[in-house]
Parts: sequence; C-alpha cells; structure tokens
Amino acid sequence: MRTQVGIIGAGPAGLLLSHLLHLRGISSVVLEKRSRDYVERRVRAGVLEQGTVDTLVEAGVGERMKREGLPHHGIELRYGGAGHRIAFERLVPGRSITVYGQQEVVKDLIAARLAAGGDIRFEVEDVAVHSPQSQPYLTFGGQRLDCEIVAGCDGFHGVSRPSIPEGVLSVFERDYPFAWLGILARVAPSSQELIYTRTERGFALHSMRSPTVSRFYLQVPADAREEEWPDERIWAELKARLETVPGFTLTTGEIMEKGVTPMRAFVVEPMQYGRLYLAGDAAHIVPPTGAKGLNLAVADVRVLTEALAAYFERGSAELLDGYSAACLKRVWRAQHFSWWMTTLLHTFEDDDPYARRLQLSYLDYVTSSEAAATTLAENYVGMPW
Amino acid sequence: MRTQVGIIGAGPAGLLLSHLLHLRGISSVVLEKRSRDYVERRVRAGVLEQGTVDTLVEAGVGERMKREGLPHHGIELRYGGAGHRIAFERLVPGRSITVYGQQEVVKDLIAARLAAGGDIRFEVEDVAVHSPQSQPYLTFGGQRLDCEIVAGCDGFHGVSRPSIPEGVLSVFERDYPFAWLGILARVAPSSQELIYTRTERGFALHSMRSPTVSRFYLQVPADAREEEWPDERIWAELKARLETVPGFTLTTGEIMEKGVTPMRAFVVEPMQYGRLYLAGDAAHIVPPTGAKGLNLAVADVRVLTEALAAYFERGSAELLDGYSAACLKRVWRAQHFSWWMTTLLHTFEDDDPYARRLQLSYLDYVTSSEAAATTLAENYVGMPW
Repeated sequence: MRTQVGIIGAGPAGLLLSHLLHLRGISSVVLEKRSRDYVERRVRAGVLEQGTVDTLVEAGVGERMKREGLPHHGIELRYGGAGHRIAFERLVPGRSITVYGQQEVVKDLIAARLAAGGDIRFEVEDVAVHSPQSQPYLTFGGQRLDCEIVAGCDGFHGVSRPSIPEGVLSVFERDYPFAWLGILARVAPSSQELIYTRTERGFALHSMRSPTVSRFYLQVPADAREEEWPDERIWAELKARLETVPGFTLTTGEIMEKGVTPMRAFVVEPMQYGRLYLAGDAAHIVPPTGAKGLNLAVADVRVLTEALAAYFERGSAELLDGYSAACLKRVWRAQHFSWWMTTLLHTFEDDDPYARRLQLSYLDYVTSSEAAATTLAENYVGMPW
Repeated sequence: MRTQVGIIGAGPAGLLLSHLLHLRGISSVVLEKRSRDYVERRVRAGVLEQGTVDTLVEAGVGERMKREGLPHHGIELRYGGAGHRIAFERLVPGRSITVYGQQEVVKDLIAARLAAGGDIRFEVEDVAVHSPQSQPYLTFGGQRLDCEIVAGCDGFHGVSRPSIPEGVLSVFERDYPFAWLGILARVAPSSQELIYTRTERGFALHSMRSPTVSRFYLQVPADAREEEWPDERIWAELKARLETVPGFTLTTGEIMEKGVTPMRAFVVEPMQYGRLYLAGDAAHIVPPTGAKGLNLAVADVRVLTEALAAYFERGSAELLDGYSAACLKRVWRAQHFSWWMTTLLHTFEDDDPYARRLQLSYLDYVTSSEAAATTLAENYVGMPW
C-alpha cells in the first residue's frame, strides 16, 4: 500500500490535515488506534479561535459549526466578589471565539473525509514508524504503508514522537501542582459567557457546549481521584466558587461525564525528524486554561499543509525544512499565554501572602487597563496567523 | 516645641511633604539623622514619572529639573541580538519620563524649604515617636517636638515603622536571588535612551544622569561584594551584556561611585497607625527595575497632603482614615510592575529550559504586540493618579 502522506491519529489534527491535503490533491491515509465511535465521543476542548473557525469554514467543513456553534464575544473574570467582562467586540473588533466541542469537529471531519472517499483506518493495531530519515513507511496490524511523508498527529501518548531517536529532541516541560476536575452536565448554562473565577478555594471555570449542556472545571489537587468527588461535592464546590457575586445562581443537573485532567505543559524542539512531522499534542501540550490545545493543532496543520503543497506541487522542500521554526513561534506564544492565564487564576499552595497580593493586583490591572485587557483578549481569540 | 506635622526624614518624601504642606499653610518640622551634605549627595533613583514631574512643577520646585532633566520618550529592550524600542510617544501619547537624579530633587526641595524659612533639622540624634495613638510627640537629641500628626518618611531602615507595636502591621515581602551592582561613571551615555538588556549572563541597564554622567547596573549574585568588582571587570561585563547588537559600542570612563543594591520587595499594611502615617520607603520598597520607588513616595505624599489639608482646614479626618487604602492600590500596581519587569529581564538560576523559553516568548510578545508594549509603557511612565 502506498500514499503520499501517512497520517497517524484521527484526532482533529490528523483529520484536518487529511482533509486539507485532499483539497490540494495530495493523497493520505489516516491510521487510528481507537474506534470511530470512541473518537467521535471523546470530550475534549470546546473553544475555537477565530482563525480555527475561519480555517474550518474555508475548508468547507464549517456548516454544522456555523449552525450549532455558539459565538462568544467576551468572557468574564470573577474574583473578589465581582465579575469583570473582557469584551472582545471592543478590544479586538471583528474577532471572537466559537464554543463547539472538539468531538463535533471530529465528527464533521470524519464525515467529510468519508464522503470524499478518504481512507481512514480505525482500530488499527501496533502502528510503527520506520526509517523516517530515508524512505519512510508505516506498519500496522501486519500491513505496510509506504509514504513519502509521515505526519505524527497521534497526541501526547502516541507512537510518533517516541519513534524519534533519543537525543534528537529537546524537551521543555512544566508540571503544575494541581489538576482540573471536569464535568459535562445536562443543564442549561447559568451564564451566557464563560466565567473564569479565582477564589481562595481555588479556580473554577463555567463553560458550556450547547444551550442544554454545560461544562465545568474545578481546580483540584494534582493527585485527586474521581471517586473522591461524588456529584453533590462537585456541585457544592462549584457553587462555593461561582456563587461569589450578587445575584448569580448556579443551576445544577445530571452529571453525564467526569474526569481529572493533569495540568502540564510540554514542548519538543524541533517538531520534525527526517520525513516525520509532528503536529498538535504529539509535539506540545498546554494546560487547558487558555483553551489553546486544539487551536494550536489547527495552526500546525495549516503550516504543514502549505509546506506539503509546496513539496508535492513544486518539489520545494524549503517550507518543510522550516516547518518546526514556523510553528514554534506560535507554540511558545500559546505556552506563555496558557501559563499566564493559569498563574493569574489558580491558587498555588506555596504562594506566600506577597504572591497573593501580586495576583490580585494583576487581576485588578487586567480588568481595568484597556491595554492589559487587550493582551488577554487578543491571545484568547488567537493571535493572527 | 510644637508643629502641626512632625516629619521624620529629609529624603524626597519628607521634604516634598513639608513643601506641599507649606503651600497649604500647614506647619511642619523635618528631622533628619544625616547631614545636609550627605542627603544631597546620596545617589539613588533617577527616573521621574510624568506625574512626579507634574507634581514638582506645580509645586514650584521644577525650574532646574525642567532645565537640566532629560526628557525620554522611550526605552530599549535588548535581547537575542536585537534592540526593540518601547515608544512612549506612540503608545502613551503626551506622557514621558524625565531623567533627573533623586539627589537633585532633594537639593531643589531643601533650597525651596530653606528659602521659605522651613524648619529642617539635620544630624539630629535618637529620633523617637511617642504615643502615636493619642497626643503624638517626637523626641530627638534631648528635645521634644509636639505635633498633631507624625509623617514617617525615614525610609526602610528608619525608626517610624518599628515604632508601631508588633502585630499591628501585616508584612508582605519578597527577596530576589540576585542584586544590582550600580555604578556612576564620568562618561557620556552610549545611547540616548535607557537600555534594559537581558542576556544569558544576566541583566544589565544602561542609564544616564546627564550628558556627561552615565549610570549602569549589572545583575550580580545576591552575595556579591564591591571588592569582587574592580573597574575593569565591571566594564568587561557591561560590554559583554550590552554590546550584543550590531554597531553598538559602550564608551567607558572613570567610575565615580560603586555600590551593591539588594533586590527586594516589601509592603506593610496598613500604612498608618493612630496619628502616624508612613510614606515612601518607610512603608514599601520595590526592586529598582521599574524605577518606581521615588515615584511611589511622591504619590504617597500627594495623597497625604490632601488628607492633611482636609484635616487641618476642615477638621475632616475622612481622607486621613482612608490614607492607607488610597495609597495601597497604586503601591500594589507598582509592586506588580516591578516584579513583572524584574522577572521579564533577569536570569534566575533555578529557571529550567521551559522557563527560559517562556521568558523569551514573553519578550517577543511585549516587543511585537501593541497592547503588550502599552502595558509596559503605561506603567513605566506611571499610571494616572
């Protein structure tokens, strides 16, 4: 079996890459360890930057997103007994975010690929990358896929990155001393916009997925286990952290899903090795505070698509050679922003009283200075390509 | 002996307070431990915010500053082999800073006070604050000064703050794991504007005091001693950190003064106790990176003057009661900004590779985003009163 680009992973990165390559007349095969059902139900991010939305629309896979996605023109920062709106429409006119679950993007992309006769292999076993520096090929379930280029889009725990020899990649990482407990609840959102709240009890986020489904996150200890968090405790804690401004009441409901996400940051440099190119979580992860993970994956895939088009259409490897450098500037901007949002809003056990005061002073500044609010807004809606 | 306001300390805070009170018809006596010559030669800060300049001009003590001070409309951030100008004239139109040594401000204020018959006692010994909660009085060198209000303007090491009983004040502090080695050199500045430079060898600052006198700072270990830094070593290190962009040459010259400044932050809350009010370094110190120390002292004194005027003119203690709260919002903004500038530009020994990349990404952002550059500029020239 032979294709131009062998893609490992049918998450948003791999599927979007396959779709964008198809639009440029470049063939690909997508290999996915999990079932289609699994990837279509996997609840992850849900905040799409303006540029991500534009990319999906331009690629012809934005119809349902435009119909069902919830455009947001601001977020609320809540602390010290008051809420402060970061107004995108004033601070970054013409740019906004769209709330639309990652698994919905995945569904749309799978549907588009299959409709176009795309080759996605689900539940393939033992995927392995071979000779990425010369004539790469992939093996899986006893089969062999020869390809000119391999795209590693298989996430943080995938096989792509570990197939690069020891010592080639520089690793940059940061573990945060807390985690997020996330829930999906069958209840209408209690607020029209996302609420990021900082309390002495820790951080909480009120988000949503649709007019009838809400998403919440609680800062919890790094070693927290789901069993320690029965539904009643979760709602009580969410109330304690969110019902901190006059007149706000949190509506509770059935919890459909529950999970603990570690908070960590990770980057490898470079994001390429021979003819193997890493995109999305395979190359970098961010703490979820700034909602950047999915959006960074889309940005990588845009860069990679252009580079592959130049390569296959004109035989030019220049963009491919510069792929990593082109991506990493944005990756580090997003890493920094995610760190910034995380440290601005979470409580750190080892923070002394001085650090607490600094944090509150910073929040006061971000919510009162037009320039400071704009730094949050422009990063949140996504820096220009 | 009796006066309305007993002022401890003839630094910028105490002298300006005495002068502003005089303009409002309120009497004061200033007690200073050091000689006039000493305080007039004490080299400290040299960057005046727009609001500080305005205050001195409005108070009639800005003539020489207007003549000899150097107005600056930008600073340079230098790192990664390039310089990036933060252009105040574009980012914060109409606001700038003025380079004019603190000791020059002190000279001007002493001259103005003495010309107006002001009472400044230099070289007084054993100043002590008594009964600040009822009928305060000061003692010094065997004399007694009865006063209605005491202003503690005697700096971080002064007697005012320690005269407040244990347990009354909350202390917030932060020690940085490095110090600044500062020099004053008889040499024309090598650049028209201040240069803040971040290198892997550490931070350096190129500043100036006049067309013929330059001021430089080097990040050094917290335990550095002047003896370890002969002139040749200082110039070599300054060259290594500043001659990092094409075409820039550092002009060297005679080093007139040399000193190691610890980098620390400190705040007490509240800034008052009974009829004793702390202003300037007596209540808070900042690391010098953001050039905020002197400017904060001036801001405190402005607030205190209005409060004392309301008290003596109308008998209203409301502003005096709110003195600390009114000052602390600005104090914490300045604390945060100073921390921000310090962490943005210094190297920290315990920084891992991830932290280094974050720092460089932040610098790239501050020097490329109009909004981020504005946050630096608006804090540097001073937030509005």
